[in-house]
Amino acid sequence: MSRTLDYAKELIRRPSVTPEDEGCQDWMIEKLEALGFRCETLWFEEVRNLWARRGDAGPLFVFAGHTDVVPTGAVRQWRHDPFVPTEENGQLYGRGAADMKGSIAAMMVAVEDFVAAHPDHAGSIGFLITADEEGPSVNGTVKVVEALQARGEAIDYCLVGEPSSTDTVGDVIKNGRRGSLGAVLTVNGVQGHVAYPHLARNPVHDAAPALAELAATEWDRGNDFFPATSFQISNINAGTGATNVIPGTCEVVFNFRFSTELTEEELRRRTEAVLDKHGLDYQIEWKLSGQPFLTDRGALVDATVAAIRDVTGRDTELSTAGGTSDGRFIAPTGAQVVELGPVNATIHKVDEHTDIANLDTLTHIYHRLLQNLLGNLLGVGPR
Amino acid sequence: MSRTLDYAKELIRRPSVTPEDEGCQDWMIEKLEALGFRCETLWFEEVRNLWARRGDAGPLFVFAGHTDVVPTGAVRQWRHDPFVPTEENGQLYGRGAADMKGSIAAMMVAVEDFVAAHPDHAGSIGFLITADEEGPSVNGTVKVVEALQARGEAIDYCLVGEPSSTDTVGDVIKNGRRGSLGAVLTVNGVQGHVAYPHLARNPVHDAAPALAELAATEWDRGNDFFPATSFQISNINAGTGATNVIPGTCEVVFNFRFSTELTEEELRRRTEAVLDKHGLDYQIEWKLSGQPFLTDRGALVDATVAAIRDVTGRDTELSTAGGTSDGRFIAPTGAQVVELGPVNATIHKVDEHTDIANLDTLTHIYHRLLQNLLGNLLGVGPR
Repeated sequence: MSRTLDYAKELIRRPSVTPEDEGCQDWMIEKLEALGFRCETLWFEEVRNLWARRGDAGPLFVFAGHTDVVPTGAVRQWRHDPFVPTEENGQLYGRGAADMKGSIAAMMVAVEDFVAAHPDHAGSIGFLITADEEGPSVNGTVKVVEALQARGEAIDYCLVGEPSSTDTVGDVIKNGRRGSLGAVLTVNGVQGHVAYPHLARNPVHDAAPALAELAATEWDRGNDFFPATSFQISNINAGTGATNVIPGTCEVVFNFRFSTELTEEELRRRTEAVLDKHGLDYQIEWKLSGQPFLTDRGALVDATVAAIRDVTGRDTELSTAGGTSDGRFIAPTGAQVVELGPVNATIHKVDEHTDIANLDTLTHIYHRLLQNLLGNLLGVGPR
Repeated sequence: MSRTLDYAKELIRRPSVTPEDEGCQDWMIEKLEALGFRCETLWFEEVRNLWARRGDAGPLFVFAGHTDVVPTGAVRQWRHDPFVPTEENGQLYGRGAADMKGSIAAMMVAVEDFVAAHPDHAGSIGFLITADEEGPSVNGTVKVVEALQARGEAIDYCLVGEPSSTDTVGDVIKNGRRGSLGAVLTVNGVQGHVAYPHLARNPVHDAAPALAELAATEWDRGNDFFPATSFQISNINAGTGATNVIPGTCEVVFNFRFSTELTEEELRRRTEAVLDKHGLDYQIEWKLSGQPFLTDRGALVDATVAAIRDVTGRDTELSTAGGTSDGRFIAPTGAQVVELGPVNATIHKVDEHTDIANLDTLTHIYHRLLQNLLGNLLGVGPR
């Protein structure tokens, strides 16, 4: 029986919907302490976080991830109880199987095997685990990173176990993420009766050409690592429900996913220039969810690509597509960050599952990565 | 004491919020039968309507109006109980004082006085009264008109008692109304995650340039009687509330108020041409609330203008502005239709009131109009 499968089942059995941990971290701590890790539990508000480290030397390589999972939705729509891990046709079903209890299981087995083979490995190994990745992400990784920075504990390399793969494990790794900048725009008009438009000012009419221009704008063309910056309106609302009333305001919620070709400030300035050009009377509230980050080719990316090739024989694709991850909190410290985990086809869905053979492959890749970075420092040094 | 004031109070005391009549029509029937009117109560669903006629000859002149009133809103915001008619500083307060129980009181007194002076008047006098003008307007005037048409009873002249006046009674009469054409437009997209816009299609982005074009379009320039046709978006809604989801559909509710320069069909065709030009995937549901109608200068308009000048010494303004009225159901039968009633400043509002002296003036104008049309047929004939 695969130990990674066994560990994944242990974790899936714990119904750790954000922000609950349900004993996942205690289970990890018991195993990690047995391997010589020093473990710290860090509570921030209602969120439990784990920082574990084996060794004092640099470079410090960290496995990052989360024990929390998204809610199951209607359990009756699942083939199996989402918190009863179930094997079927070579797949492991359960909430978190792919995002990301499978990854944590693989990390644990990889570390056990690596430490057994290299009890005196170079550098240090760390685990940065939160129970707040799928939720507000306010009292999780970002706070742990702040605590580490406050005491001068710098991460050199970080592997986030997010499910990066598309068709088979290791076919895609994420070496960066786009930035995410949101806004709530309120366009002010003057409410009135549709029969007396000269006494009113229709904010939807005012907004429409400005929104059309924003939607048609080419913000940048991306670069070698990032697709072009994307503007998307997620919500628009105006009107009282009555069909004879010109609304007084129109609220528009939109979001930029942006590349490293642009800054947050440029996006704000260019957006507001369009709104001003169209003569809108408006307020806008901006919210930055994450700066874009990029880990260019270098020690970590090269070691990860090599580990995947060594274990699977395949080349891997570097990608910055997709949503945000906790990597956005770690990369700004100067750490090199990559994300590598299972196939993401079923994450956040009913009947989440992961290929059991892929879990073992992932374990071997993580193990090989540890060997590449800390087992043999030839050509790989701390930053 | 003014009899019109007295009658208006009688009606205001009856809390006839749509579709309730609360005895208003029974009160009218008692008085009208005493004058020699044949009265018919016509029920359509839950709506009570009154058709009363005195005489069999042509031309048939009809007072049209409604006994129902709009709701009061929060009664504690009123100076006086809205269903306790109250005099204060020469004003009569109460729900319906201006819209349009004051008008009905004036019609009743005018008819009493006119019949007393002209028991053998020319033509016929009618009353077409509904309790469903302020509501859906489905089982009111439109149904009575259908019933009259079905039996070949044709209205020649119709005065609707809607509060047409702006500053003082008779300063404005309505000799037509714009048409009202509404639509619910659903623009279809493909829902998705904002991080993966290439897998989605944002219906707000699709709709924005089309809406901008519709809002900027000059549909016509109006004519001597009508302002330019107006397009107004009353409601727009898209989005799940989540800020990271591209919505699957965008719903837009809009309304045309249109002149006689255009037809409903032209508006539909031109609108859909814009939507098609922008490549939208959409459904649209059209709803015609009323065709535009116009009663050009002729027997009724001339007699009304003359009556106002005779009583007040003032010239009156012909207007087609404002919302719809039940005139839209009567005009298509070929009847000449004008609207003349109290000052409309407080209608549908808290503390609705009307000037008591104006009520008497309105009574005199209605009386004079009856004289002009039916008391002396010189130069005025049936259509």
